Amino acid sequence: MNPASRPRGVYSPVVTPFSNDLQPDHDRFLRHCRWLIEQDVGLAVFGTNSEANSLSVDEKKRLLDTLVSAGLPVERMMPGTGCSALTDSVELTRHAIASGCRHVLMLPPFYYKGVSDDGIFRSYAEIIERVGSDALRIYVYHIPQVSQVALGLPLIDRLLKAYPRIIAGVKDSGGDWDHTQAMLERFQPQGFDVFAGNETFLLATMRGGGAGCITATGNVNPAAIVDLYRDWQAADADARQQALDAIRAVFAKFPMIPALKGALGIYSQDEGWGVVRPPLVALNDEQRAALKDALANAHFAMPGIEAALA
Amino acid sequence: MNPASRPRGVYSPVVTPFSNDLQPDHDRFLRHCRWLIEQDVGLAVFGTNSEANSLSVDEKKRLLDTLVSAGLPVERMMPGTGCSALTDSVELTRHAIASGCRHVLMLPPFYYKGVSDDGIFRSYAEIIERVGSDALRIYVYHIPQVSQVALGLPLIDRLLKAYPRIIAGVKDSGGDWDHTQAMLERFQPQGFDVFAGNETFLLATMRGGGAGCITATGNVNPAAIVDLYRDWQAADADARQQALDAIRAVFAKFPMIPALKGALGIYSQDEGWGVVRPPLVALNDEQRAALKDALANAHFAMPGIEAALA
Repeated sequence: MNPASRPRGVYSPVVTPFSNDLQPDHDRFLRHCRWLIEQDVGLAVFGTNSEANSLSVDEKKRLLDTLVSAGLPVERMMPGTGCSALTDSVELTRHAIASGCRHVLMLPPFYYKGVSDDGIFRSYAEIIERVGSDALRIYVYHIPQVSQVALGLPLIDRLLKAYPRIIAGVKDSGGDWDHTQAMLERFQPQGFDVFAGNETFLLATMRGGGAGCITATGNVNPAAIVDLYRDWQAADADARQQALDAIRAVFAKFPMIPALKGALGIYSQDEGWGVVRPPLVALNDEQRAALKDALANAHFAMPGIEAALA
Repeated sequence: MNPASRPRGVYSPVVTPFSNDLQPDHDRFLRHCRWLIEQDVGLAVFGTNSEANSLSVDEKKRLLDTLVSAGLPVERMMPGTGCSALTDSVELTRHAIASGCRHVLMLPPFYYKGVSDDGIFRSYAEIIERVGSDALRIYVYHIPQVSQVALGLPLIDRLLKAYPRIIAGVKDSGGDWDHTQAMLERFQPQGFDVFAGNETFLLATMRGGGAGCITATGNVNPAAIVDLYRDWQAADADARQQALDAIRAVFAKFPMIPALKGALGIYSQDEGWGVVRPPLVALNDEQRAALKDALANAHFAMPGIEAALA
């Protein structure tokens, strides 16, 4: 792979559509992924907002197979492969590599709490050794408010020293700009790519020398987020950031994953998008109407979505 | 199954031994389970202290197969079958039922945080409907300090009303006696069996009409815990409880799972017991020596363990 294909820009943890009987809906998934790729949004499938941890390893493997078989570009995929169980993480990462995806986003194991840096290091190291591929590039996934397992700077430093090529970057979803900035200053110059965990820090991340963002709202507002990524040095960049923030704030008033799926349903005229797996709950009628109104009031649009998802 | 085989007494979340290359060690596992059964400790395999969430569904299925094939009594097993992914929980629960185990201990899905009671209810309900077995008996697993997903009284009440025979009890590992007591008063009279999450609440739970305890230290101190369960109405019950608490307190000074495995290694003279999967870390030499001294000072013994695990 040439350096030009190193991940940069905007990625989205692609929401996973389900049929009414809660099976992954491969057709809707493929159409949505194709629409994202057309707008230059990379596919961070199997992220938190993908309900990835409500899917079995086999379900994730089959969903990835669907994308690869359909010819979507593997160099624009960054599947989430970090599971609670070591052997699941190894199996899913191997499958990603065998499918041609070399970039993976990897949660630390997330059931046990209060684990040590030694234990987290050992987890990543075991996965790297067992997968045993020089092609592998791991983006570690820092989302302590959900995983409850933080990836601090000393741990990242240690991983980088042990696996300087394989440990390739981070998705920082912690919401703490100081942490993002510290990684930009300390690790980005070593070629460790820092992605903001959502677009509210996109401009700051680009100004700090980072690689882009991996954001839930990339599922619904891809074009505008990609525009800011491309034009972050433009004179009106701050105004564009504010416009992105305003749309994000609408979604943030609702449970995020049901709201993303709700918006896809509303704008594509396909109610089937609303289904979520337990333990999540779909928007109720009142929430859905409120989301619709709030997005209309914010002049939100999803150009082309109806045709793309039809 | 006759009512006499309804689970009562002392269960242990059986620690899962691993080979040096971190594979589940079926031989050591079987020997340990047999030793526990001989002392009338039930097998709550695949609990938190079993490192269950560091094992794949297939690994757990094969470990259960080993016990069942060896003829260990299925009516004394209560495998943990609650996973992060709905489909994993369904698969593992179906396998337990197909193996003849009707009692399962079930965590709620534990990746997503801040989920609603509606979502947790829907998760249990979907699993029950998909497994579709009248034989199934679910013991819900309340361990909010680890799972970060609490099972409150209104949720349990709702589950009991919807599935009065299938929702059979709880393991309460929350460490909050008020919560245990409230369940004993409100639900135990309905036949919902309350198990304390460790033996420090065993006597109080028995006095409150509960069913027993499911405890990590059952792995190492089975006989004494079973004795208190049997003789909880004896004159010296409080003194026995204090003796159990003193041993528990020694283990609680160390990371629990590595300490349990460390003690099994020390007392069985089989160092192979010390291996844990990441993200856990085995006791280091200093910790191991400190554990050995502290247990000796507490006059701790594991009669018969050397022969049993040889």
